[in-house]
Amino acid sequence: MSETIEPFSTNLNFRIRSVLEKYNLKAEIRLSNLKGFFHYDDDVNKMLASGKDPLIYEYYENSQPSVDGYLNFGVTIIYPGKVGKEYFLTRGHYHAKEGTAEVYYDLKGEGIMLLQTKKGESKWIQLTPGQATYVPPFWAHRTVNTGKKKLYVLFAYPSDSGHDYDIIKQRGFSKLVVEEKGKPRIVDNPSFT
Amino acid sequence: MSETIEPFSTNLNFRIRSVLEKYNLKAEIRLSNLKGFFHYDDDVNKMLASGKDPLIYEYYENSQPSVDGYLNFGVTIIYPGKVGKEYFLTRGHYHAKEGTAEVYYDLKGEGIMLLQTKKGESKWIQLTPGQATYVPPFWAHRTVNTGKKKLYVLFAYPSDSGHDYDIIKQRGFSKLVVEEKGKPRIVDNPSFT
Repeated sequence: MSETIEPFSTNLNFRIRSVLEKYNLKAEIRLSNLKGFFHYDDDVNKMLASGKDPLIYEYYENSQPSVDGYLNFGVTIIYPGKVGKEYFLTRGHYHAKEGTAEVYYDLKGEGIMLLQTKKGESKWIQLTPGQATYVPPFWAHRTVNTGKKKLYVLFAYPSDSGHDYDIIKQRGFSKLVVEEKGKPRIVDNPSFT
Repeated sequence: MSETIEPFSTNLNFRIRSVLEKYNLKAEIRLSNLKGFFHYDDDVNKMLASGKDPLIYEYYENSQPSVDGYLNFGVTIIYPGKVGKEYFLTRGHYHAKEGTAEVYYDLKGEGIMLLQTKKGESKWIQLTPGQATYVPPFWAHRTVNTGKKKLYVLFAYPSDSGHDYDIIKQRGFSKLVVEEKGKPRIVDNPSFT
């Protein structure tokens, strides 16, 4: 690709609903879109049966051509809340091109990032405002909101990374972030395979 | 590279001098390191001759392996000030692997990013806190502090991008950011080749 793309800037405005002024990809993920991603299925089904289908997270992305060397960036907003004991979370993903990294920056809000590799390693990182997190190649990552307010993270990753959500849906994350006595706690996921 | 790197987080702390808690590359760039990058050579020489060699900018980077798919990230701090009419600036660079992008996020402070391509295109972008800027592949970019306080920008770019500063030193940027009547103004660089 030799055609040049125009540089641009975009404001990250927390006061308006559309958090990223310039984006070409937006998604709103509700509880009904996350069946299979939360551990407590009974609670998911109960909530949905009662007519509640809360917004769990949304993202605004500036997607660039899926070509080596380009970067996508955007903002993910994870809402505060729980399903059963489990805090609201993103699906989480491996990159389809596994050898690609991602950089996160916590703009606002409190959370935990869960990370794991296919070799069985796992790790979690506390997210606090003003903190950058490096997700190296080969690490799946999921963002969890453990606070009482919305969690806003800025992200940037190679445009040709792609996303593998299916393996997460099938196998889950090895750890869960649950509330115990009013506080977040990391526990083993009994149904992780 | 199949060995996995551990994920990590790092605080961006503006109150301490080492702005990035975890970094493996740090540089302090003084006026004497920037000979050939400012337009007003006489003013540079006068300032140096008078025994002043101010810190113009510094950066703290977390450098990752120079392998496709990895990302480097860090913080650049550009100090407020001028040499003659020209505001303090970074050298600016093309990426050596030209087809690689960069994402900037203005953490604090005011400035202007100058951008240009080898085809002769040029562009400038106002930097204000809370704003992300996308530098597409093939665009050289220089950050200029037009404010009265330090300018802090977060950056992320592919680890195998490399930097070409020499072409900037030889040819310059097509535009200058100068102070006129107390305000920043973009003017043509008469010595741009």
